[in-house]
Amino acid sequence: MLISYLKSDIEVMEQRFRTNLINSIAGFKSTNLIGTINHERKTNLAIFNSVFHVGAHPPLLGIVCRPHEVERHTLENILSEKHYTINHIHPNILTASHQTSARYPRDISEFDACALTEQYSNTVKAPYVKESRVKMGLELREKIDVRINGTVIIIGEILEIMLEQNIIHKDGFAELEAVETITVCGLDAYYKTSLLSRLPYAKAK
Amino acid sequence: MLISYLKSDIEVMEQRFRTNLINSIAGFKSTNLIGTINHERKTNLAIFNSVFHVGAHPPLLGIVCRPHEVERHTLENILSEKHYTINHIHPNILTASHQTSARYPRDISEFDACALTEQYSNTVKAPYVKESRVKMGLELREKIDVRINGTVIIIGEILEIMLEQNIIHKDGFAELEAVETITVCGLDAYYKTSLLSRLPYAKAK
Repeated sequence: MLISYLKSDIEVMEQRFRTNLINSIAGFKSTNLIGTINHERKTNLAIFNSVFHVGAHPPLLGIVCRPHEVERHTLENILSEKHYTINHIHPNILTASHQTSARYPRDISEFDACALTEQYSNTVKAPYVKESRVKMGLELREKIDVRINGTVIIIGEILEIMLEQNIIHKDGFAELEAVETITVCGLDAYYKTSLLSRLPYAKAK
Repeated sequence: MLISYLKSDIEVMEQRFRTNLINSIAGFKSTNLIGTINHERKTNLAIFNSVFHVGAHPPLLGIVCRPHEVERHTLENILSEKHYTINHIHPNILTASHQTSARYPRDISEFDACALTEQYSNTVKAPYVKESRVKMGLELREKIDVRINGTVIIIGEILEIMLEQNIIHKDGFAELEAVETITVCGLDAYYKTSLLSRLPYAKAK
């Protein structure tokens, strides 16, 4: 049976209940590790459940940052150094990836604390996660301040993509299921996927 | 074996290949039907793969709109009428939901064309999808123009949530898998999910 929550019900919910509910009803989300580096070459790695597609030409991705949360090192590093990496998560690195959400002090890199390996390319100065099977290097293009709640949206252009060649279909589709890319619901529930169907381009009858 | 695509490779890709590749490497996304109504009470329904979480208090969701695509009726209706609904998709309505992406003329409602049923509440004037098992009614709060590619981000506040009571855990987490909410990769590949694990709140060791 369907039940309804109205705005007035949501406002008086216990805070943790509301956070879990609202974070989960948005639907399944991508979950990624974002790698950054600061001007002293200290690296940072943080799990984000908020990467979203903005455009393909130029290739643009967005991320949502709360300025006052653990993610602030990531945001500061992106704003100062311009480069960052987005790395997919698979089951073998899930526990380590989730652990990056702990509040480590700035002088400890989550790469070390969570036993993930830094990897560098010639294109971006931020570190990739070596264990990740699909990863992208990006450069900051636009910072958007969301007025209503102080959230910051970061939009970056993809400068580099690294992935398993055999997951790319002839039409460009990347079969993420084949490399076990994980999806997340809410703050902490991680899922694997199985294909229902690829549907053809829809035309009005 | 990992292969790399650089910015220069992406720029010269065949357009459809690039669109599929960039849309899929962002990871798994939520897929939802967005219901709107115009000032003449003509309804519109469109599938969006771009709903994202912006905040829990107040409860805010974002959607990404391309101004020049089929989704424009949705954007116009949200801007003029302020209300819209976001409705989850399950396998029984997947084919109908995907069909809403076809380019129907403005005087044809996708509800009729795709055999989905309008449902109304006392809270928002936009139509819900009766067949959907998790749905939200929203009010426009902020319109953001993304300068770099002309995309529009719409941020709305949740005024109403309707869902199956038995999927809500004690901590507020909504178990979307129990109502078969679908996730999407790229433009057209739809997936069901299965839980790997819910992980506890991470603390630095």
